[in-house]
Amino acid sequence: MSLKVVIIGAVAAGPKAACRIKRLLPQASVTMLDRDSFISYGGCGIPFYVSGDVADLKGLTSTSFHMERNPEFFRGAKGVEVLPGTEALAIDRAAKIVRVRDLASGAEQELPYDKLVMATGSTPFVPPLPGVELANVTPVADLHQAQAVKNAVSQGRVTSAAVIGAGATGLEMAEALADLWGVEVHVFEMAPQILPGLADPDMARMLECHLKAQEGVRLHLGAKVEAIIGDEAGRVRGLRADGREYAVEQVILATGVRPNVELAAAAGLALAVGGGIQVNEHLQTSDPDIFAGGDCVSLTHLVSGQPLYMPSGSLANRQGRVIGTNVCGGQARFPGAVGSFCIKLFGLTLARIGLNQAQAEKLGTRCVAPLVVQADRAHFHPDNKLMYVKLVVEEGSRRVLGLSALGENGDAVVGRVNAMAGLLARGALLEEVSNLELAYSPPLGAAVDVLNAAANTCENMLAHKLRPMGPEEFSRRLADGLGGGTVFLDMRAIDNARPYLECLAPQWCHLPQEMLRERLDEVPRDRDVVLVCNSGVRSYEAQVLLDAAGIKNTFNLAGGVAAVKKWGEPILPAREEEE
Amino acid sequence: MSLKVVIIGAVAAGPKAACRIKRLLPQASVTMLDRDSFISYGGCGIPFYVSGDVADLKGLTSTSFHMERNPEFFRGAKGVEVLPGTEALAIDRAAKIVRVRDLASGAEQELPYDKLVMATGSTPFVPPLPGVELANVTPVADLHQAQAVKNAVSQGRVTSAAVIGAGATGLEMAEALADLWGVEVHVFEMAPQILPGLADPDMARMLECHLKAQEGVRLHLGAKVEAIIGDEAGRVRGLRADGREYAVEQVILATGVRPNVELAAAAGLALAVGGGIQVNEHLQTSDPDIFAGGDCVSLTHLVSGQPLYMPSGSLANRQGRVIGTNVCGGQARFPGAVGSFCIKLFGLTLARIGLNQAQAEKLGTRCVAPLVVQADRAHFHPDNKLMYVKLVVEEGSRRVLGLSALGENGDAVVGRVNAMAGLLARGALLEEVSNLELAYSPPLGAAVDVLNAAANTCENMLAHKLRPMGPEEFSRRLADGLGGGTVFLDMRAIDNARPYLECLAPQWCHLPQEMLRERLDEVPRDRDVVLVCNSGVRSYEAQVLLDAAGIKNTFNLAGGVAAVKKWGEPILPAREEEE
Repeated sequence: MSLKVVIIGAVAAGPKAACRIKRLLPQASVTMLDRDSFISYGGCGIPFYVSGDVADLKGLTSTSFHMERNPEFFRGAKGVEVLPGTEALAIDRAAKIVRVRDLASGAEQELPYDKLVMATGSTPFVPPLPGVELANVTPVADLHQAQAVKNAVSQGRVTSAAVIGAGATGLEMAEALADLWGVEVHVFEMAPQILPGLADPDMARMLECHLKAQEGVRLHLGAKVEAIIGDEAGRVRGLRADGREYAVEQVILATGVRPNVELAAAAGLALAVGGGIQVNEHLQTSDPDIFAGGDCVSLTHLVSGQPLYMPSGSLANRQGRVIGTNVCGGQARFPGAVGSFCIKLFGLTLARIGLNQAQAEKLGTRCVAPLVVQADRAHFHPDNKLMYVKLVVEEGSRRVLGLSALGENGDAVVGRVNAMAGLLARGALLEEVSNLELAYSPPLGAAVDVLNAAANTCENMLAHKLRPMGPEEFSRRLADGLGGGTVFLDMRAIDNARPYLECLAPQWCHLPQEMLRERLDEVPRDRDVVLVCNSGVRSYEAQVLLDAAGIKNTFNLAGGVAAVKKWGEPILPAREEEE
Repeated sequence: MSLKVVIIGAVAAGPKAACRIKRLLPQASVTMLDRDSFISYGGCGIPFYVSGDVADLKGLTSTSFHMERNPEFFRGAKGVEVLPGTEALAIDRAAKIVRVRDLASGAEQELPYDKLVMATGSTPFVPPLPGVELANVTPVADLHQAQAVKNAVSQGRVTSAAVIGAGATGLEMAEALADLWGVEVHVFEMAPQILPGLADPDMARMLECHLKAQEGVRLHLGAKVEAIIGDEAGRVRGLRADGREYAVEQVILATGVRPNVELAAAAGLALAVGGGIQVNEHLQTSDPDIFAGGDCVSLTHLVSGQPLYMPSGSLANRQGRVIGTNVCGGQARFPGAVGSFCIKLFGLTLARIGLNQAQAEKLGTRCVAPLVVQADRAHFHPDNKLMYVKLVVEEGSRRVLGLSALGENGDAVVGRVNAMAGLLARGALLEEVSNLELAYSPPLGAAVDVLNAAANTCENMLAHKLRPMGPEEFSRRLADGLGGGTVFLDMRAIDNARPYLECLAPQWCHLPQEMLRERLDEVPRDRDVVLVCNSGVRSYEAQVLLDAAGIKNTFNLAGGVAAVKKWGEPILPAREEEE
């Protein structure tokens, strides 16, 4: 008898498992069902389909060699039977049978299985808002919804839209609507930052600053949406948030997703604290003949050891293969995830992996995470762009917990985060990042890479040689004026410092770093002194020198003037900023 | 008494160590000497200075904030005394004294030290060729030589040049001269491939194919240069190689470098098998008060455990910091290197890390290293480019030994190699790369990254499910014709296959992969069958299916038609190739 496998869900983890099973056990009978008629598509590509970067829905449903991944393809090329438009109603674990219904005909049948794979995915969370049922109010979680939105905007029926939720999907949709279609997009986010739970607050702030500078994007952070407002025809015509009304013809719901666990729960499978189906490192559920993967499972965070719910097409695909192997009797492992994430918005890329400082501290970990700014390749090479990174290192253990990075060369930013993926899964130590052997050639990297520099900065901080000040506190102290008790010592060449001196003296003073040794007596001793340069390197040098001279009332502006500017806080009155 | 440190060599490791020492022990007295007047420069940037990418020599000798790193800068900003134009003559280890001579005045003095740092660098190897002493025959290992070459080409005195040696420097110089200055450049390399000892032969071949397509570049591989030919004025006018004469007005010697170890050897310090000064993981020489780093030391290859001589400004900088820490009593470690390398030539980037297959097999290791081709981000995203990778995995242990990658998006190529840096240093296992959590978003990565796919391919090969054939053997068998006993089965859609069928039938047959299940009887059983598709994915699927049907006389064209094309071997007669 050949092995009978039933797979519930046919988007990412399901198809991957199905194909792997057929390659390992060609004689196995594999049946894969899905409620939807669209199967095996790149859901993460939806915003790029709406924007027009992907011209056609087929782009998301086809292989790289332009074959549509429809049921016929799965049957012919893969030997997998697909039942689209079919819902799984119940699992009888004792009899090893899944009862399913064809949604069009209503006909029910029973599918016997030896091994069952749950790849039931997730469902967009629909916030309980008045008006949420109106036409043109929709998530964009499947291709039908994506098509509807693209049709509406491409036919010119939408000039203004609201996106509720500033997570990855919400922001990508905002770019898609504003950039190509010229739609004015209001993004409403309850949290005080974009990408809450995903991005480090400083990095989020830098990206917010970039988004605010884009035509057509209006960010509303810390905003409470109260209602969506309809017209007589039942179509949306506006949205009320924090007591103010905004005229919009389209509302995108991007308030996250919830794992589809009802079927599993009804069958008595264990659920995890994280909300998804519980699986072991072989992606087996509490029933050893039932495997689960993709958006419906909870994982273990390999850095924190905590449960992690992280819906991602990429994790789903990798899990699908592991499930396929194990369904066929293998012992492949998927021990968990390190939380890698990236997003590119209007040409600026933010990426992160592991924990950020706030997440680490919430778990009771004491850590350092200085902001470090450096060119992403040789500073003398014309293609170089500044990269902004924060490496998070635990005090005491010196274990590296995470990395955030931001910059214009997207592949370079993601490359730095990816360089930490394997190490974080293994429990990397600071010293390994200090010596991390990133490849070097002037057009492609720096002799001392920004990652090495970030590790060295963390080490200096752990050795109490560096006392950094972030852009937020810097801005506050600057706004307090001289009466606040802080002076700023500009360590740069006079050409850089001059406009600041003209606007901000006497709170802003000038002492080039290379002259500090001979002019120590000019450093104020009776107040806090913030040492300032372009990137934080010279000011660190100065801080060490001053410490040795017994002058310890100093802070080093982390990432220098470059970081403050990127963070979006003007130092000089508008139009006086140097370029 | 404050610590007295003498540093011999002021280019990369030396200055880095000097500055680190002054930051850790501001009261230390640090004296750094160098034979040259130029110090602390980015030597790897020389080809980019010659090309004009870096307009001015100052670009290579200045900090990112445009301060020239001259002796005054080191004194004022860093508190380091520099003696340029000064040669170290001898080390008296018993008395802890270095005897030095000012090269201009001839004056000698003795510098006492508590700790000594050897950062004596390397010297270009000058091949013993007739005519090597002629004017306009030069390495480009220092800024004087770089200036001389740039002056000659920028003043139009060079229309044709020869580069001897197709290592990184030689090839970068070839691009610099050909691309910006329009010089016809002949590159002569003794080995049968470019980047010998650095690049995997298949990857090198792909890059060679790209170089040959560039205007002004003439590659001569496996070439023996016999003499450089001068005119009456003692200037070069030509070069003879393999009995043929080439008219050239400039010869660049790029035949590698040798570590400068004479001073160390004369002082009785131990040398390593690799040729450089021997150091332990704290970068201490056999004399615990003498440290060494940069181009003058040998390292341990962290994958092979063998001695490694790998001159690199990047390693030198990282080592400089470790030396600085340890000179001040710290215990920083630099256990060795994993051999990361990258180069960008005419827009195509090659990167590698660890061992390639040939290197691994030379050490007696049995391994697999299939060529894998995949888009570097979502295949439906318009920015995607194919990436060509070879992951090297040891049989039995399943340990990952190395990675080579090639593609047009340079940062993406280097990013994949960098993702292996930390893992290789730790002894990565195949499963870790299979699950490696590279960040995913369609503009920045693929759901199943090319690295994951490469690991999965290796696993399939180790499980004897995949029998790949490389482009070289494919081309040979195709050239043998039908009489050679091999047929080619094109698994692609008819539109792709048609031109091949028209030119190559009956040796070339067509059977789309999705129809294979129903048309098994069309597969020849009496000869070797090479399964062909665009990238190797469908042909693998077919191979598994045929194996299950008992048809095992097949090979899978690794990387598909894409790889053969990149490898530069025409499948169809010229001008018939599809685009």
